[in-house]
Amino acid sequence: MHTTIHSTEMQQVLTALFRQHDFTDKKSQTLAEVHTENTLYGVNSHGIDRVPKFIDYVREGIVNPAAEAECLSTFGSIERWGGNSGPGVLNAISCTDRAVQLAKTHGMGLVALRHTNHWMRGGYYGWRAARAGCIAILFTNTQPNMPAWGGRESRTGNNPLVIAIPRPAGHVVLDMAMSQYAFGKINAYRLRGEQLPFPGGWDAADELTTDPEKILAHERGLPIGYWKGSALSMVLDMLVTLLAAGNSTYRIGQLDHETDISQVFLCISPEVFPDRALQDQLLQEIIDYTHSGPAMREGQRTYYPGERSLEQRQHNLTHGMQVDEQVWSEVIRLLE
Amino acid sequence: MHTTIHSTEMQQVLTALFRQHDFTDKKSQTLAEVHTENTLYGVNSHGIDRVPKFIDYVREGIVNPAAEAECLSTFGSIERWGGNSGPGVLNAISCTDRAVQLAKTHGMGLVALRHTNHWMRGGYYGWRAARAGCIAILFTNTQPNMPAWGGRESRTGNNPLVIAIPRPAGHVVLDMAMSQYAFGKINAYRLRGEQLPFPGGWDAADELTTDPEKILAHERGLPIGYWKGSALSMVLDMLVTLLAAGNSTYRIGQLDHETDISQVFLCISPEVFPDRALQDQLLQEIIDYTHSGPAMREGQRTYYPGERSLEQRQHNLTHGMQVDEQVWSEVIRLLE
Repeated sequence: MHTTIHSTEMQQVLTALFRQHDFTDKKSQTLAEVHTENTLYGVNSHGIDRVPKFIDYVREGIVNPAAEAECLSTFGSIERWGGNSGPGVLNAISCTDRAVQLAKTHGMGLVALRHTNHWMRGGYYGWRAARAGCIAILFTNTQPNMPAWGGRESRTGNNPLVIAIPRPAGHVVLDMAMSQYAFGKINAYRLRGEQLPFPGGWDAADELTTDPEKILAHERGLPIGYWKGSALSMVLDMLVTLLAAGNSTYRIGQLDHETDISQVFLCISPEVFPDRALQDQLLQEIIDYTHSGPAMREGQRTYYPGERSLEQRQHNLTHGMQVDEQVWSEVIRLLE
Repeated sequence: MHTTIHSTEMQQVLTALFRQHDFTDKKSQTLAEVHTENTLYGVNSHGIDRVPKFIDYVREGIVNPAAEAECLSTFGSIERWGGNSGPGVLNAISCTDRAVQLAKTHGMGLVALRHTNHWMRGGYYGWRAARAGCIAILFTNTQPNMPAWGGRESRTGNNPLVIAIPRPAGHVVLDMAMSQYAFGKINAYRLRGEQLPFPGGWDAADELTTDPEKILAHERGLPIGYWKGSALSMVLDMLVTLLAAGNSTYRIGQLDHETDISQVFLCISPEVFPDRALQDQLLQEIIDYTHSGPAMREGQRTYYPGERSLEQRQHNLTHGMQVDEQVWSEVIRLLE
């Protein structure tokens, strides 16, 4: 069952909750804003649904509310930062903003971050960089949750990748993990008693299956494009690990929790180009061309990455967000 | 039927062929080297098999043998180049080498190239950057050859992406298009009378199919991960188009041939970091971890991206390359 929560209410409740858990007023407000914003975009799994687990991590000392990300070394347009086991959201904001700043100065900027925690919804930082006028290419590693192609055990991560492109008529923001489906999404199919539309992982007999129950029993997600997503995932893990000199998916898997992960924030400032109007026109042509084609199935249409997110946000801002009743009760209980 | 050709022979034959088509000695040697190298890596489709079509393009004036890529404007670590409809391979080499040079100076370097031609095998430039000690992220757009998810017509490209990471124990080089299978690969299944192992495109009734014949009849390739590869492909097209202010897949589709395409060459120099030995160790851990797991099926194993290419090259260097007899006859005929 779901309940309708308006964003102003969620923002207030979460700010108060984070304050109670040793975050400063400013940090509490920012954390509340990001979790609310993620829920506004319809990504409850990395918004409101994730709050109880985040509070657990704070209580267990896995996330340190007082810690802040700091620059460890700089090399021209590249910086390496340490996250000091602080909240992943605040660390990622610091590094996004720094990469934007470097890009405005150098044309490009890259911040590699280690010893950080889950950034929740990666798309948030893509939208943030785009609002600041920057192209962003952002990626993170995770705990092992997908078999590398040919292997039987989950030994690579689903390593989300975000690519954002600023555009006056609506930023383009792609936010995708390397697994065909997030486990949260697979669980939603399970709860509705439905099969996945396409295979999403392996069953106990090592066969690909569309049965959410069988996939969740083993947590072996299918990489997008089989061997291709597996390879892309490995390479993203290598890049964050190398650039941050931080933990790889392998090392994260040796820990008791998914913590001390590594991330890359790469920004490019298209403002260095003198022809922004032409660029916007060229992007609009691409969008118009894909939009104007006939649909594959009746009722279908094409979208550019980020298009539906923006519609969802607008709808949720006006009508309130659909939040799982149990989750909301738990958040309220945590507050009391 | 295949014939065995040694790389020294192919290099000689192709150098002579390109010389006959108005390329300078130096350009002929380089073009021959790249086509031979691509065939050594086992990618005949973008090596020897592609030579007759390339010669056609030169004869038709689509590729201008005299043209060279030139820098149009610079903005710190970013440059925009014009390819002047020159050979895609030589333009891509110029831009890769320039991006490497920029990275050595600034930590990162990006060259956006417009009005260029097919770069053949993108991996070549990844290996080249890695040999020069750089991380490389390279991508190109193409003519429309995949439906954007939800659409019925091919209105996005398969837009290959290359990510290379230098490593003393063997460079990691991922070279993947956004389509599940290259049309050349689908055709190889057709010739062998086999079905694809996984769906690779749509049939006339708009259903996904593993039948190579049905896919080739309509040239609607399936994006990796369905909606995900479709979105990634659109975003790569947007990035090359915006950064190069060049043709998008849409505009390329309006032309009679696949020409005047746009590409991005982004390099990062890990030499700016003081801890290369640690980085190599961390990468080796990732590789060892994936390699050491149990296989999904008997006889299977995991590979890191680029691992098999290197084995293939070594094998082909020693034993010669398997080349389609008809293709080789045509090349020899062109030379006479």
